[in-house]
Amino acid sequence: MESRKVILFIAMSLDGYIATENDDLSFLDVVAVQGEDYGYAHFVNHIDTIIWGRKTFDKVVSFGGDIPYADKKVFVISRTRSGKKGHVQFVENVVPLIEQLKSEEGLDIYCDGGGEIVSELLKHQLIDEMIISVIPHLLGKGKKLFMNNRPPQKLEFVNAKSYKSGLVQLRYRNIGSE
Amino acid sequence: MESRKVILFIAMSLDGYIATENDDLSFLDVVAVQGEDYGYAHFVNHIDTIIWGRKTFDKVVSFGGDIPYADKKVFVISRTRSGKKGHVQFVENVVPLIEQLKSEEGLDIYCDGGGEIVSELLKHQLIDEMIISVIPHLLGKGKKLFMNNRPPQKLEFVNAKSYKSGLVQLRYRNIGSE
Repeated sequence: MESRKVILFIAMSLDGYIATENDDLSFLDVVAVQGEDYGYAHFVNHIDTIIWGRKTFDKVVSFGGDIPYADKKVFVISRTRSGKKGHVQFVENVVPLIEQLKSEEGLDIYCDGGGEIVSELLKHQLIDEMIISVIPHLLGKGKKLFMNNRPPQKLEFVNAKSYKSGLVQLRYRNIGSE
Repeated sequence: MESRKVILFIAMSLDGYIATENDDLSFLDVVAVQGEDYGYAHFVNHIDTIIWGRKTFDKVVSFGGDIPYADKKVFVISRTRSGKKGHVQFVENVVPLIEQLKSEEGLDIYCDGGGEIVSELLKHQLIDEMIISVIPHLLGKGKKLFMNNRPPQKLEFVNAKSYKSGLVQLRYRNIGSE
């Protein structure tokens, strides 16, 4: 059986930002098209576990309403929080968590950001695939997807898909971790 | 007659670097394929002017041999140098230079980087088109193509072209500057 993969599925501006400094995501509006989810629903059907950084989690909570993915396992990486909140479990260290999850059977694992948790996972070669939607926009400043000072990593290009809106979805496989 | 365009034609790693801190470009080797120039020769046939940042110029000089583009106008932006060196002319301010060039007839203008001159041009909405070759590699650290703290800029997606090597060439038009 093939091992479960950790997959990053995320959008960034052409200049590499995932949000403004204030976590504003309105630059994504330039690719908002009725009935087009850029493969998101299909992707989410093939995962059963979500990994969020704590700041990303707090941002999701700030939107109000129920925390999404109630039918999946959701882990939030936090140095200070522990225990559970609804279907969300707080975990201090992402590396042993991923090792644990990979030793279990299950569907793939969705890393939804943000930049800090992506950095941490990349430092440990723990992202197996990256599906990055490049938004046709320069944000100019904000929160970077790829923070500075990580080790280099070899990638295998899988494919690129262009959409009418100008979004280009790039897919890569980590060669270093195989 | 359509005005001359300033076109950025450059390669970056997926994580947004154009070189290591030491100006090492060997990450480009992963896409080196005999007989494949990724449109470079075609592109260069349609420009008659090159803009280099001073650091990029010094890097080119460090390679030894003749300075390329002897048949074109080459401008190097420098706060400290002036005058000419062979076919290269040093210029202090890029903004009036571009305004001057655009008032003259001619072919398009090639901005070859690096990050500082790209930042300066973007701040003044002076890059009309961007042709960015995304290299399937994470460099981890180094010199960013897009430096922080620029104004946001609207882009129109033109096209994306994937190559067998895994290089994806993205082309955008600046909408803000039109």
